[in-house]
Amino acid sequence: MNKRGLGVGLVGSGFMGKCHALAWLNVAAVFGDVAAPRLVALADATPDLAAQKAREFGFAESTGTWRDLLQRDDIDIISITTPNEFHPEMAIAALEAGKHVWCEKPMATSLAAATSMRDAASVAGKTAALGYNYIQNPLIRQVKALLADKVIGDINHVRFEMDEDYMADPLTPFTGRSAASAGYGALDDFGVHPLSLILTLLGKATRVFGDMRKPYATRPDGKGTRAVDNFDIATALMELEGGAQVTLSCNRSAWGRKGRIFMQIFGNKGTLAYDQERLNEVQLFVNDGPVATQGFRTIISGPAHAPYGRFVPAPGHQLGFNDLKTIECREVLRAVAGEPAHLISFAEGLHIEATVHAIARAAAEGRWLAVG
Amino acid sequence: MNKRGLGVGLVGSGFMGKCHALAWLNVAAVFGDVAAPRLVALADATPDLAAQKAREFGFAESTGTWRDLLQRDDIDIISITTPNEFHPEMAIAALEAGKHVWCEKPMATSLAAATSMRDAASVAGKTAALGYNYIQNPLIRQVKALLADKVIGDINHVRFEMDEDYMADPLTPFTGRSAASAGYGALDDFGVHPLSLILTLLGKATRVFGDMRKPYATRPDGKGTRAVDNFDIATALMELEGGAQVTLSCNRSAWGRKGRIFMQIFGNKGTLAYDQERLNEVQLFVNDGPVATQGFRTIISGPAHAPYGRFVPAPGHQLGFNDLKTIECREVLRAVAGEPAHLISFAEGLHIEATVHAIARAAAEGRWLAVG
Amino acid sequence: MNKRGLGVGLVGSGFMGKCHALAWLNVAAVFGDVAAPRLVALADATPDLAAQKAREFGFAESTGTWRDLLQRDDIDIISITTPNEFHPEMAIAALEAGKHVWCEKPMATSLAAATSMRDAASVAGKTAALGYNYIQNPLIRQVKALLADKVIGDINHVRFEMDEDYMADPLTPFTGRSAASAGYGALDDFGVHPLSLILTLLGKATRVFGDMRKPYATRPDGKGTRAVDNFDIATALMELEGGAQVTLSCNRSAWGRKGRIFMQIFGNKGTLAYDQERLNEVQLFVNDGPVATQGFRTIISGPAHAPYGRFVPAPGHQLGFNDLKTIECREVLRAVAGEPAHLISFAEGLHIEATVHAIARAAAEGRWLAVG
Amino acid sequence: MNKRGLGVGLVGSGFMGKCHALAWLNVAAVFGDVAAPRLVALADATPDLAAQKAREFGFAESTGTWRDLLQRDDIDIISITTPNEFHPEMAIAALEAGKHVWCEKPMATSLAAATSMRDAASVAGKTAALGYNYIQNPLIRQVKALLADKVIGDINHVRFEMDEDYMADPLTPFTGRSAASAGYGALDDFGVHPLSLILTLLGKATRVFGDMRKPYATRPDGKGTRAVDNFDIATALMELEGGAQVTLSCNRSAWGRKGRIFMQIFGNKGTLAYDQERLNEVQLFVNDGPVATQGFRTIISGPAHAPYGRFVPAPGHQLGFNDLKTIECREVLRAVAGEPAHLISFAEGLHIEATVHAIARAAAEGRWLAVG
Repeated sequence: MNKRGLGVGLVGSGFMGKCHALAWLNVAAVFGDVAAPRLVALADATPDLAAQKAREFGFAESTGTWRDLLQRDDIDIISITTPNEFHPEMAIAALEAGKHVWCEKPMATSLAAATSMRDAASVAGKTAALGYNYIQNPLIRQVKALLADKVIGDINHVRFEMDEDYMADPLTPFTGRSAASAGYGALDDFGVHPLSLILTLLGKATRVFGDMRKPYATRPDGKGTRAVDNFDIATALMELEGGAQVTLSCNRSAWGRKGRIFMQIFGNKGTLAYDQERLNEVQLFVNDGPVATQGFRTIISGPAHAPYGRFVPAPGHQLGFNDLKTIECREVLRAVAGEPAHLISFAEGLHIEATVHAIARAAAEGRWLAVG
Repeated sequence: MNKRGLGVGLVGSGFMGKCHALAWLNVAAVFGDVAAPRLVALADATPDLAAQKAREFGFAESTGTWRDLLQRDDIDIISITTPNEFHPEMAIAALEAGKHVWCEKPMATSLAAATSMRDAASVAGKTAALGYNYIQNPLIRQVKALLADKVIGDINHVRFEMDEDYMADPLTPFTGRSAASAGYGALDDFGVHPLSLILTLLGKATRVFGDMRKPYATRPDGKGTRAVDNFDIATALMELEGGAQVTLSCNRSAWGRKGRIFMQIFGNKGTLAYDQERLNEVQLFVNDGPVATQGFRTIISGPAHAPYGRFVPAPGHQLGFNDLKTIECREVLRAVAGEPAHLISFAEGLHIEATVHAIARAAAEGRWLAVG
Repeated sequence: MNKRGLGVGLVGSGFMGKCHALAWLNVAAVFGDVAAPRLVALADATPDLAAQKAREFGFAESTGTWRDLLQRDDIDIISITTPNEFHPEMAIAALEAGKHVWCEKPMATSLAAATSMRDAASVAGKTAALGYNYIQNPLIRQVKALLADKVIGDINHVRFEMDEDYMADPLTPFTGRSAASAGYGALDDFGVHPLSLILTLLGKATRVFGDMRKPYATRPDGKGTRAVDNFDIATALMELEGGAQVTLSCNRSAWGRKGRIFMQIFGNKGTLAYDQERLNEVQLFVNDGPVATQGFRTIISGPAHAPYGRFVPAPGHQLGFNDLKTIECREVLRAVAGEPAHLISFAEGLHIEATVHAIARAAAEGRWLAVG
Repeated sequence: MNKRGLGVGLVGSGFMGKCHALAWLNVAAVFGDVAAPRLVALADATPDLAAQKAREFGFAESTGTWRDLLQRDDIDIISITTPNEFHPEMAIAALEAGKHVWCEKPMATSLAAATSMRDAASVAGKTAALGYNYIQNPLIRQVKALLADKVIGDINHVRFEMDEDYMADPLTPFTGRSAASAGYGALDDFGVHPLSLILTLLGKATRVFGDMRKPYATRPDGKGTRAVDNFDIATALMELEGGAQVTLSCNRSAWGRKGRIFMQIFGNKGTLAYDQERLNEVQLFVNDGPVATQGFRTIISGPAHAPYGRFVPAPGHQLGFNDLKTIECREVLRAVAGEPAHLISFAEGLHIEATVHAIARAAAEGRWLAVG
């Protein structure tokens, strides 16, 4: 990796914009093996906000026009953290301008647009990575290694749940989030996170069934109530390439759940379980040794789970959500350098999008459908 | 309730036979408000075993012929704990002989037979109760009360999982349990337990979808391998009368799970969660009070949850599996006395059976089906 | 064991009286290898109550005079479940009358009286066992086996906590429980339970230090307030014969704790942890295998942990508090039959009493004291 | 706060050096309300290492001589992260040079040296803060607020445990850590963390008792074995100003514990519990509402717990260990700006040191001692 760090342009300055900024700020200090990225410029549609956030996040310049970033020779990579509907135009333009792209999930609000993004990445030959940071948890990598080593044998059954409660209150007013333009609801709003874990750990879906529900048919809109367009609850049944069956349940109206992604992977030798609300723990059961002392063991993250040790040299001290993004950033740098990287590419992301759309259509038609 | 206790005949002396026997032995001492049942006779197909178990369990007499019990005037109620395939003939004969019947779940291996049992109970006008003891947990009754009081509001989404690992080892030899004659597999083998909880707490299913899987296509049978007929893994999607959606996952090949029935009930004001592997705890989240101190609370069973206090006057000391049967036994006595009882009757049990068969057919046909 | 079961006389019919009665009722049915005890007579100071409880619990006769039980030839063993202050007189008289004795913990309210009980047992040559039922948990036996097998190596440090909240409310009125005559408070009221576990699992204490506290100096007594005599909170530091150090914390005013006995045993190869509020689980950590997959494993009780299987043949179904007493009853029958039994004898119980008194004195004097 | 950020000099580049560096890197971007600190220079005794780490951590310059930092006008504050024995000389010199000081805990290896540090800070009138970052957890601040609001009433009893396993293996070779020069062992090595929480949440200790143990009398030293000087296990009993009693247990040879600080605070209305190994959760029990639904509630950290929302705007996404240091850094900036800050000052830190030494002396003398 060259001594002069990559030049970074950031588009967007909200939740994930800040998360990307922190990752770019930290990656060199945490990992110690890459040149510090240069935080060149931040773009936000509101110029004043762009200027303020650039100052806060440590970017040298700011602009109200994201296309400005594409013109600059000192920018090598574009972080895209805008609302989903803007991803395709921005990512494709950036790739066409010869930039690497690190774009937040999901790719787009239509399969056609996501396909265009994949195609643009393919033509450009640049790094085109998606922001699926939950796969970056060192313990998720540990799970991947355990699965590869067949520690729990061949997988036959899998369950994923993803639950939060930001839509749980029926009195939460109608916003764009409940409009058809925002997509299907829980399924693509955050269901893509478990889908990214399924893809990473277990492989591609071949057939799916779906069921989507509206817990609240209407929401208040100031004047009265307005019909909700999309689905706060989504359930999918899936078959994977290897034959395993998956049940996926998503609920963004699940009171009390704050960031739960509960995963259970059943194999013919053992079981793995994980809850994102306790992201520093994973549960492993192996059918091994005397029955009287078998049990699920709680593995606590530590330096044995790379790259945990880059953050803290002592086990059990715990990583947080933003740390996962820093790990992802390091993987993006690997990809840019042409090294093998643990990432969801646009090509792989397209499979996730295709799965989402297949589930939604299967739900509407009440029958199993093939993916892709 | 009269001073002279009910005369009891027990058919079967295995796992559930002993469980019924202990319930009959304990019910008067635990509750203190019923006359002690008279343990008249125990029937088991093997006369010597019947004699031995009668001695152990405290029954006065024994027989190798279960019909003997029906002839006796000093027997008022028959506990049926034989393999499922014998339930219909025994239950119907007992009812026709004017006996009350307490029969282990599930009712039968065919819907037709279960329907005959329901009809026989209806004609006989006797108590005809099923052994769905998980609904007897004082904390499940507490959940029922919380639901009735709308503490978590209107229910929109529900998840049930039931998992054990007695079929998890692919080297476990082929037995009758894997044969078509034993039924569908996980779905009716133990999936009826969560179905009994769903029925009790949330109401009847109207439409279902299903998916059933064989983790192991064959099992060893001494000479080589034999094709497995039924499904160790079953998943169902359900709609309930009230409109709530249910996802039910059953896996009897789930390594490390020993008696897990994990239930999550989501309402518009809160959430309830419960795990049968920790049957003395229930989790309750209510959207109430300052957000900064909201959280799932772990309620530990105690005298505030009747009839816990009949077993131990101090909270947190914990009930066990067999205690639930004793509670069920007290409910059976209530039913016999013509009092309102918290039980699954043959009529209600038939709904569970109909649901099971609908799920299996929906799985085969890959589409939603109405129940009943 | 002879065919005719032991004749039982029960003194007391409260919390523990009922618990003993249930154990006597169940022991033969559960274990299947002992003759059913004969429930001969129940004594309670109030004759009517004695009669009522005898009926409920299944005892053939009742009396208002406990000494009546000692006269009867058809009674072999006396269960003593009266308030602690009555234990010495009753136990000694029973032993002198040639009866076996099963007496609830603790032995007595003075060390002198406990010593007399030990002496009477020694002279009588009869079984004289104490009701320390927490040591009967199959998982506690499993812990004992793991310790004996040095699975966690040599023990150097141990922590026990015992907490309940029946004295947590400062508005709970003054009762005899807070009077000097009831003893030291938390230390002997229930601290003897962890002491019984320490003795059973780890051996005798040699030196102790103590600290006892009154969270509430006074309690309401109807007219106003009354000074509390004893200590709802007690802490002890102990050295054991083998050199291990123990910290014991007891709090009967611990809001939210219902029956917590949290135990942590640290060895040079691993750690064991257990919480009585989840009595069907034990935690085991062993320094073994790759660090990346080490962790505390949660062992769930099952047939691999004898005698769990006598209650339920399937794992994970859970035992309850009363089941532990039935196991203890089986051990008492073993002792009576002259077989090795897993019990706390009067001689061993005296060590617990001596430890309690030494801790209390050490607390008063603010220095380490030798035990015994 | 002025527009030009504070100039920072960092001494030390190990575990805590990196942790400070990350905090300085992140504080402005995370909080958005402070000027970005200028990372001026990093000092490490090894010049090459200093240069390398300066590059990695983003410091403009480096030096092998820490006193160089004190000469520079462009440095306003010195982060001290060297081994404990160097703290006094460095901190005092920095204060005398007119710099603010942020020094890692504990202060020093002798009470005299710590007192000199406190005196130097008093004379200098500069910010002199200690690196007790566990008190910075937003949930710990929430606990502090709950205590101040008397949500669990008046506190009478407290338990703290701090356990890790980096000294658990008896085969771990003798290092400086086991030498007398390193201090008492577990008590000051990490026991000061719970002491910082006790001081922050509950107030000062007035009297203490102690007990310190060596689980392994010797450790291998290459040639054979060498006697261990200090104590891997330490227990303290404490009385606080307000009258509450505290039991503190520390064990750095506790197999399986990775970063456990388990805290239980008992009041006359409720209980709070917290485990540092799950730093995003706190447990609260309040005696309020119907007994049947009382229970410990698990509060998951979120934006309701400031300043969590500065890191992630969504609840349940979790903070990590390094985030706590960033929060602490923001408090240091507050202190420098003359604003009220949530920090342990040198003056307060001296109380922690005095408590440590009193516990050690009490352990040696086997009696209660006053603190200070």
